[in-house]
Amino acid sequence: MTTHLLLIESPDAMGLVYKITGVLFHRGFNIVSNHEFVDPATRHFFMRTAFDGDASPQSVIDELRGLLPPAATIRLASTGKRPVVVLATKEPHCLGDLLLRHSYGELPARIEAVISNHATLEPLARQFGIPFQCVSHKFCTRSEHEREILRLLKFFRPDYIVLAKYMRTLTPQFLEHYPNRIINIHHSFLPAFVGANPYHQAFTRGVKIIGATAHVVTQDLDTGPIIAQGVLPVDHTHTAEDMAQAGRDVEKIVLAKALKLVLEERVFLHSNRTIVFE
Amino acid sequence: MTTHLLLIESPDAMGLVYKITGVLFHRGFNIVSNHEFVDPATRHFFMRTAFDGDASPQSVIDELRGLLPPAATIRLASTGKRPVVVLATKEPHCLGDLLLRHSYGELPARIEAVISNHATLEPLARQFGIPFQCVSHKFCTRSEHEREILRLLKFFRPDYIVLAKYMRTLTPQFLEHYPNRIINIHHSFLPAFVGANPYHQAFTRGVKIIGATAHVVTQDLDTGPIIAQGVLPVDHTHTAEDMAQAGRDVEKIVLAKALKLVLEERVFLHSNRTIVFE
Amino acid sequence: MTTHLLLIESPDAMGLVYKITGVLFHRGFNIVSNHEFVDPATRHFFMRTAFDGDASPQSVIDELRGLLPPAATIRLASTGKRPVVVLATKEPHCLGDLLLRHSYGELPARIEAVISNHATLEPLARQFGIPFQCVSHKFCTRSEHEREILRLLKFFRPDYIVLAKYMRTLTPQFLEHYPNRIINIHHSFLPAFVGANPYHQAFTRGVKIIGATAHVVTQDLDTGPIIAQGVLPVDHTHTAEDMAQAGRDVEKIVLAKALKLVLEERVFLHSNRTIVFE
Amino acid sequence: MTTHLLLIESPDAMGLVYKITGVLFHRGFNIVSNHEFVDPATRHFFMRTAFDGDASPQSVIDELRGLLPPAATIRLASTGKRPVVVLATKEPHCLGDLLLRHSYGELPARIEAVISNHATLEPLARQFGIPFQCVSHKFCTRSEHEREILRLLKFFRPDYIVLAKYMRTLTPQFLEHYPNRIINIHHSFLPAFVGANPYHQAFTRGVKIIGATAHVVTQDLDTGPIIAQGVLPVDHTHTAEDMAQAGRDVEKIVLAKALKLVLEERVFLHSNRTIVFE
Repeated sequence: MTTHLLLIESPDAMGLVYKITGVLFHRGFNIVSNHEFVDPATRHFFMRTAFDGDASPQSVIDELRGLLPPAATIRLASTGKRPVVVLATKEPHCLGDLLLRHSYGELPARIEAVISNHATLEPLARQFGIPFQCVSHKFCTRSEHEREILRLLKFFRPDYIVLAKYMRTLTPQFLEHYPNRIINIHHSFLPAFVGANPYHQAFTRGVKIIGATAHVVTQDLDTGPIIAQGVLPVDHTHTAEDMAQAGRDVEKIVLAKALKLVLEERVFLHSNRTIVFE
Repeated sequence: MTTHLLLIESPDAMGLVYKITGVLFHRGFNIVSNHEFVDPATRHFFMRTAFDGDASPQSVIDELRGLLPPAATIRLASTGKRPVVVLATKEPHCLGDLLLRHSYGELPARIEAVISNHATLEPLARQFGIPFQCVSHKFCTRSEHEREILRLLKFFRPDYIVLAKYMRTLTPQFLEHYPNRIINIHHSFLPAFVGANPYHQAFTRGVKIIGATAHVVTQDLDTGPIIAQGVLPVDHTHTAEDMAQAGRDVEKIVLAKALKLVLEERVFLHSNRTIVFE
Repeated sequence: MTTHLLLIESPDAMGLVYKITGVLFHRGFNIVSNHEFVDPATRHFFMRTAFDGDASPQSVIDELRGLLPPAATIRLASTGKRPVVVLATKEPHCLGDLLLRHSYGELPARIEAVISNHATLEPLARQFGIPFQCVSHKFCTRSEHEREILRLLKFFRPDYIVLAKYMRTLTPQFLEHYPNRIINIHHSFLPAFVGANPYHQAFTRGVKIIGATAHVVTQDLDTGPIIAQGVLPVDHTHTAEDMAQAGRDVEKIVLAKALKLVLEERVFLHSNRTIVFE
Repeated sequence: MTTHLLLIESPDAMGLVYKITGVLFHRGFNIVSNHEFVDPATRHFFMRTAFDGDASPQSVIDELRGLLPPAATIRLASTGKRPVVVLATKEPHCLGDLLLRHSYGELPARIEAVISNHATLEPLARQFGIPFQCVSHKFCTRSEHEREILRLLKFFRPDYIVLAKYMRTLTPQFLEHYPNRIINIHHSFLPAFVGANPYHQAFTRGVKIIGATAHVVTQDLDTGPIIAQGVLPVDHTHTAEDMAQAGRDVEKIVLAKALKLVLEERVFLHSNRTIVFE
């Protein structure tokens, strides 16, 4: 028997869970796990259901479309390994950690390629047997650069794109090709620091906690819906470089966690928030 | 409209969620929040559903009894303030924190009384206007002592009993009167230490993390199903007394959290585990 | 024998530790604990030394003034309980936690009074036997209001003033009377939110971590040097009010920790940073 | 100018810091950082001083031997990269993380070789260009097996040996060759579980926190002095395998942290405790 994933979003209405589980029940499917959430403010309904059975799951979708509110979105997702492409620049810690986890099967992903605007990380990718494509941003316009990356992405056909310390802002035109399918990691602080050299600012302010935020990339690079966050303690003996080191440790753990969550289809978007069914 | 809580445990079977939500739907109730879990090893099903509507919720129970497996347990719980009695001995930190939170309405509880085998904490309880009963364990047998506490409990009729650093072991005979309705807090360490003076042992071993565990009291005082745990970091500059201080800080936060979870009926027991719907 | 605290700041110079410990050694004092730190960027030296012995510690200071760079500041501090005044407004969680810890001797403080611009917290303070002074900000100018608080503070003579959710901004004129002697607690987020109703903003952004920052109050209320920070995890099931509850839990722990650190003279200021000798 | 590390342990005595810093001062050395600690119970003194200057540091040692108590141990340590050998078995997560950090220069180590009793991890080591030696434990006695590993270690001359999930117990005879120079990582729980399959036990007990402990290996494999610990939260939705995954995440971070601490000579042993100058 195969396990299928059913993902539903809908304006809330009476009897939604009843109707959905009824379809599964009458077709002989067995629910393996079920998560639901209704946002109290907007009365919007979210559901992730893993179910197994021998019948074709497509007919479930068709029947649900007739039963649920017209504004509902209903989809099936695979529970197998999903194709992923990683974009990086020069820093190895996030890419390396993803490649390692990938190499020993910890991620439900198949990393198809690493694309970078620098050649720095080529040996790291090659060492793990992953194709590496350098697309330099020099001697070309921003739109030419993005067009070349899009061309490669179309070839590799990723379900998700991971920005593993990719240091260039993506244009809205680029993002339109992969709406809500790009995730990013960036350092975070309490309080936040705007502008260049945030670890230096964190140091001069004497922060005691260094954090990282993994989020879905929307039009504004660092402020999309948050998927996961983590923190590590620091103190006055940490130089700005030590704080950056702590930042790297927490970034890699949080990015891997966020990637796993999206690959397992545990993350729903709602306005600028996420619903995360852990 | 009133909000009701429906709590169900059952051997798993096909269509459980469908049947349960169907009863609510057909009687015009609206589901406010829904948590389900099926234990993969034992195929046991757990569900907590908050729903509101004008009809009587009792008929829901009656109808469900006819629909669900005979081994299912189905019950309704109140969403109002629940009566609680706190047992303590001499240490004030957990009791004080509960009384404070209670005084400004943070807990869905009505603390009916504090019972202690010492008079030490009487001023603290009185200061918050809570009845204090001292039941000394001197000059009486263990069973006489417990009988007197039981007499008081019968008077105060608590839904839950909180052991807030109550330092006497309760007998199985006592526990039978409040099965799974007594929660306890105790310090925890990685690794654990057996025997007297655990903070001194933690110190001599040089542990770097101090923890606390809140659990349901079963026959064996410190090993019932775990409801919540927390930790705080320590280092070599902490004396055994400093470690005990860190222990008190984490104990009071974890105990308050666990009490809130049980009062809101978010905790199910399954063998020696808990299912906690946070 | 009495334990004394020696607190030194100085531009770094060769032989500082040698000279300082030499003075203590030759006068027969025994060093109990010693913390030093040299800021690598500014070459500024910080030292906190606890020492005991029968001789008068004042002569140590006098001799050190002749030996250390002219720009050094050298002082002795008491290791006993220090007078503290708490300023609060309406929220009870931080004040209540401080009063509790104070009542069972956990803080090296003597809370002399609670001052508030509202009468709300009077019963809480009185219940712990602490004088409560309401200084309403109505029907008076800001400077009249602050003048009245200053009058009370002059009466109570606190070493430190704790803003336990005191919701009014203090003017630079007020702060001049207690430079670096006022500590504040406020909620913190990754990322930070500017403007009104931060918990609502945190909710709409879907943050996964709620934090609190305790800091020294300087001209700008929420951006003085950071003494301590803490965090608690939250998720999409937390409403804005649940996030505020988590915020209160972490605020009270972090404020109590910060107060203990300053009372034990473990906190040095350096530009906008702190050196914290834990 | 070169930076040197001076490491001193001694029964406490008056004037120790004065005498030690005096030797450095009079020889024209400049103290870069200084950590001291006196264990209050045993009156034992620990000091780690980084200093720089042009003179030979060896004469410092010689002079200090004449000044400090005869029972003092005084040594110099290098601040450069230290040779390390990693022992592993089949699990890749800790080894992979160390190899990654090593490859981008995050550790003050030169990993000379990986030695394993299985061939499983050979591709991982080779991929990073690190020599891999398989020393099977089959067809030989325990002492023959250890003798062969010792032969290799003598060739590679490591300052520290890291057990990165090396699953065989080392004999006291083996440990004598590298006293206090072997560090290990193992999973930890609150409460602890004895016997086989601890993650399964943690699961059946319903623990909410998974931890890891890095420690110095002494005669008893899992109970040497603790260098570092970490934790991650889990809940009832985590299977035993999910808990093991969380365990792997925290193990790799804690082991890397502990290795960095010992390589930088920040860890002193005292009875069964560590003094860690972070």
